[in-house]
Amino acid sequence: MCVPQPAASSEPSEPTPIRRPRADQARQVADVLRHQIYDGAYADALPAESDLAAEFFVSRNTIREALAVLKNEGLIDRGTRVGTHVAARKYDHGLDALVGLKETFKDYGDVRNEVRAVQWLSAPPAVARKLGVEPGAQVVFIERLRYLAELPVSLDLTYLAPDVGAQVIAHSLESNDIFALIERVSGQRLGGASLALEAVSADPHSAATLQVPAGSALLMAERLTSLDDGRPVDLEYIRMRGDRITMRGNLVRRDA
Amino acid sequence: MCVPQPAASSEPSEPTPIRRPRADQARQVADVLRHQIYDGAYADALPAESDLAAEFFVSRNTIREALAVLKNEGLIDRGTRVGTHVAARKYDHGLDALVGLKETFKDYGDVRNEVRAVQWLSAPPAVARKLGVEPGAQVVFIERLRYLAELPVSLDLTYLAPDVGAQVIAHSLESNDIFALIERVSGQRLGGASLALEAVSADPHSAATLQVPAGSALLMAERLTSLDDGRPVDLEYIRMRGDRITMRGNLVRRDA
Repeated sequence: MCVPQPAASSEPSEPTPIRRPRADQARQVADVLRHQIYDGAYADALPAESDLAAEFFVSRNTIREALAVLKNEGLIDRGTRVGTHVAARKYDHGLDALVGLKETFKDYGDVRNEVRAVQWLSAPPAVARKLGVEPGAQVVFIERLRYLAELPVSLDLTYLAPDVGAQVIAHSLESNDIFALIERVSGQRLGGASLALEAVSADPHSAATLQVPAGSALLMAERLTSLDDGRPVDLEYIRMRGDRITMRGNLVRRDA
Repeated sequence: MCVPQPAASSEPSEPTPIRRPRADQARQVADVLRHQIYDGAYADALPAESDLAAEFFVSRNTIREALAVLKNEGLIDRGTRVGTHVAARKYDHGLDALVGLKETFKDYGDVRNEVRAVQWLSAPPAVARKLGVEPGAQVVFIERLRYLAELPVSLDLTYLAPDVGAQVIAHSLESNDIFALIERVSGQRLGGASLALEAVSADPHSAATLQVPAGSALLMAERLTSLDDGRPVDLEYIRMRGDRITMRGNLVRRDA
């Protein structure tokens, strides 16, 4: 432990002075400030350093270091004369429900899909197993770069079971969510999906496609979606720009 | 669209040759291979390039490029004589349930917490609002670097409501989950939590603390946890090493 703590049963009457390394304090401030920015606390300009210092009970130097962290992430811009401004808008994507991107972002703007590939291919064993088909069986592969408000937000690689895939690709993939198309062509509601989420650094080619610097942090999802009858039909690998997407959801305490 | 697609109503009798740029194909292979590695398909060594080429119906050059992507992420090691080996173990963290790290990883090994700070501090307005206390009120702040099997996996910054916090810090924070301590001292079960998940690049100081290169991708969570009676008591900012943690959960289709 870095600092003495007060007796556990009583609160101190005065704030305990913070004596942690400035970089630790700066991270602490940056974490809270980041979410204030997401929550829209600052329509455009952030308060002056001195005001933020008072708000967080830290020095101006600590505020400066916290702002440097958020600037490096591309979240804010700073200029000597113009102050500190919010540089990037982040969008919330639900973790609770199974919802397509267009449906999710309908309040934010139009989702447009640049369809980079549509093809039949022989399913590698791992893909075949997840979709419940024979290894080497023909499945539909779709690659889409997805734009929200004319900025790329995610690159989605999709494998579809052959019967569903054949019908899905008869429809426009530029303007429809694949989820909506699957429900339309199958006559079934989607049931559920298993999701694996990771943070990865963008390889140079993916970075160029998503228009971010190589090495940028991406939120990466593998998602296997089933029809209401439990049959898996849609396996997706989704790279989301870390500076554009926040996944949000609610957790419940499981029974002991 | 990059390639012609067959008529939607019929499958081709022969696989359509893949004519996409090699970097696109390599990403496609890397995505599937990544999850085969996580799933433990390869105990240690990956198959030879020629075997992988046959498995994925692509050229050896594409396999080489896919392996380069995974090597840059630190997931595999490659040597000219020793072949390709799995370099890093990843651990699954549940997205469905509200479970502490020690509880989550009990099958993987011991979780040990290096307690970097325990202190009372004046809650900045944004923290106060989330914990339902007055701005500037004294709250408990705890910073822990969490190790699994002696490797750092996450850096957790925790703000606790004063009544709960005062009692929590009377117990050992080195070996207990804060969730377990909150339930013990409050006499209540945890209710639920709201979670926001992002991918961020590690700033130099956080990177050094987590023992990763600066700029590495981190999975970053803000999680506000409430007691069973609905009162929020625990606000955490958690940086997880992208190369160690995968968050997994299930989604359900919401009612239309």
